Amino acid sequence: MPVGLIEPTNLLPVSGVELAVAASEMRYKSRDDLLVLLLSEGTNTAAVFTQNRFCAAPVTIAKQHLALSSPRALVVNAGNANAGTGNEGLKNTRLSCELVANGLGLSANQVLPFSTGVIGLQMAMSAYQAGVDMALDAMGGADWSRAAKAIMTTDTIAKAKSVTVNLSGVNITLTGIAKGSGMICPNMATMLAYIATDAAIEADVLQVMLSQAADASFNRITIDGDTSTNDALTLSATGQAGNALINDITSDDAELFYHALLELVSFLSQAIVRDGEGATKFVEIGVKGGTAQDCESIAYTVAHSPLVKTALFASDPNWGRILMAVGRAPVLTLAIDKVDIEVNGVLIIKAGEPAKTYTEEQGKAAFSQDDINMCIRIGESTEECVVWTSDLSHDYVSINADYRS
Amino acid sequence: MPVGLIEPTNLLPVSGVELAVAASEMRYKSRDDLLVLLLSEGTNTAAVFTQNRFCAAPVTIAKQHLALSSPRALVVNAGNANAGTGNEGLKNTRLSCELVANGLGLSANQVLPFSTGVIGLQMAMSAYQAGVDMALDAMGGADWSRAAKAIMTTDTIAKAKSVTVNLSGVNITLTGIAKGSGMICPNMATMLAYIATDAAIEADVLQVMLSQAADASFNRITIDGDTSTNDALTLSATGQAGNALINDITSDDAELFYHALLELVSFLSQAIVRDGEGATKFVEIGVKGGTAQDCESIAYTVAHSPLVKTALFASDPNWGRILMAVGRAPVLTLAIDKVDIEVNGVLIIKAGEPAKTYTEEQGKAAFSQDDINMCIRIGESTEECVVWTSDLSHDYVSINADYRS
Repeated sequence: MPVGLIEPTNLLPVSGVELAVAASEMRYKSRDDLLVLLLSEGTNTAAVFTQNRFCAAPVTIAKQHLALSSPRALVVNAGNANAGTGNEGLKNTRLSCELVANGLGLSANQVLPFSTGVIGLQMAMSAYQAGVDMALDAMGGADWSRAAKAIMTTDTIAKAKSVTVNLSGVNITLTGIAKGSGMICPNMATMLAYIATDAAIEADVLQVMLSQAADASFNRITIDGDTSTNDALTLSATGQAGNALINDITSDDAELFYHALLELVSFLSQAIVRDGEGATKFVEIGVKGGTAQDCESIAYTVAHSPLVKTALFASDPNWGRILMAVGRAPVLTLAIDKVDIEVNGVLIIKAGEPAKTYTEEQGKAAFSQDDINMCIRIGESTEECVVWTSDLSHDYVSINADYRS
Repeated sequence: MPVGLIEPTNLLPVSGVELAVAASEMRYKSRDDLLVLLLSEGTNTAAVFTQNRFCAAPVTIAKQHLALSSPRALVVNAGNANAGTGNEGLKNTRLSCELVANGLGLSANQVLPFSTGVIGLQMAMSAYQAGVDMALDAMGGADWSRAAKAIMTTDTIAKAKSVTVNLSGVNITLTGIAKGSGMICPNMATMLAYIATDAAIEADVLQVMLSQAADASFNRITIDGDTSTNDALTLSATGQAGNALINDITSDDAELFYHALLELVSFLSQAIVRDGEGATKFVEIGVKGGTAQDCESIAYTVAHSPLVKTALFASDPNWGRILMAVGRAPVLTLAIDKVDIEVNGVLIIKAGEPAKTYTEEQGKAAFSQDDINMCIRIGESTEECVVWTSDLSHDYVSINADYRS
């Protein structure tokens, strides 16, 4: 069950974006698993991708296509990641772009391909082709909720949100969808997320804003420390809202848009954690007071510790495990007498020692919440790193061991 | 159930070492949880300890005492780690050494203290004292098997072994015990392990040999990536066998002894993995062909990947997850077309692509074994890093979430 997350509502269409979904039956039975987004001419698209060296064939091709031209269509399939598939995988990806391009009257390099699902399996291209045909026949409309469902794998709930912002008198819409449930520890980008806006934004400015926003959101989440081969995040700006083109990142409009974007990506990235495989807790870990790098090292060490994560699952105030994880983090120096640890407002460690005010009852109350906020102070600096993660439950093991995902 | 591990047999006494155990009832009911090893005068003891910054009070005190004098006694309690206990923890540790010293007619700094168990709990010193009194009353003999049981926490089986070696005509015995089941990713040393030998070895040589042997054994195992606050490994040489003093690490006798030591620590460290919390597989991961550091990074990334570990638990040849983990390892460069992956002799990835010879049946047969040998080649160099780990099962979550360990 996702932690504090409900089905998306009030999703807004984005002028210049048409959607189509289909059930290709490639891997899943009787559910949508293919999504095509058609972008109007003149749309600028920014993207960030996984840093995993064994990146999937569609990641390789999407990067090539982005370098060649402005994308007019995105195509996403769920169930097969098309990763670890060698040259045949690349060939199939090129073919998938051609199929979509032919149906839409585009050239293949105007299509960006994306895949998510099992690694190491070749794509069933005849089913894929049938799916594309069905989707293109149904092209049109703006059912973002159905689009969000079509890209799910082990996700249990669709993740989508719309945000509006007024730029110098013009109302702008941003609508985004995301998926991701396991193999989540993005590096530069996470899993699959697609955002569209009707704002007019220059391509370079768009890319800088997306990269910055990803660093502050998708790059701060981790479920199991495993970085996917397929992570991708795109932001397409159709320019149909009629606002004055944003071509200066320091302008007021750019700042307003960036904040709206940040609100959207923060929601989507946290939604991925809230629906993390087997998650029963949503955990924010903030580490402050050291160098930026040390804060980050400690935050991720705590976030990845299986012993911390199982204690959280148990709602057990076994804070010794947090202490252990802080102590084992790969930082050059740590003054343990400067370490304070607080969980949901309860002070547990003060200056490296058990806080005199702490009681087991306080601990139990703090750890029994679904939303856990952990504050770890390691010194006096103003640096801070926040990461979002989930707990480690029986269901995580079941989801990843009982069948192949 | 431990993987391919049986109760220790044929354990040999070590001349100059006397043992005593007791049930202090500090935390566990009706089982031995306290061990005292008495070492004859003239014994040299080498030791390595955890690198966790939040090291436990006994680790701090043991280091201080080692710097002051040659230990004559080791005292170990199971059930309470005396870590994260601040100044009161240090005070209790000093008192524990005094109790043992008084009973044996030693000075407190001739006693090395060790603890394992729950973090963040103060020691019940009256029960501890009663346990020490009982143990000292029973001092004598060499029941190493009972000693190995007395230091267990979530371990399901005792870990102990004896090795003999002939040094220039003199028979030498090494007997060692170890415990450890979770919070296992040693850094310089692991959990608790105590080795005694009747060989005569100079203190400096002994320390170098122990550090080297630890690097090749205890420092190569990982169960959950979590480095304990209490890891400690000691090697005591009583010198009672009558061999010529080993004072040159390049001598034949030193080499013979080192190999016997290596056999013993390899067994003990692997035994810890075989009895890892919830372990159903014993997994050796060898990475070769890159720089030493890159081989190590990749080996640990694969060993710590929850998705690889759950696939191993499932006996599922989901090799895409191994590929993912190799690809996300923090190495500077990785030529994916140089990557070969073999599991239990089955070639899966050849030059970065699925091997043409690979079949799912082969994969199933390979992954269904209890002992898994993973060979990952990333280039042409002769460097290699081998780590030993276990899988991630439902029982791991149960052991760490269903009660406080």
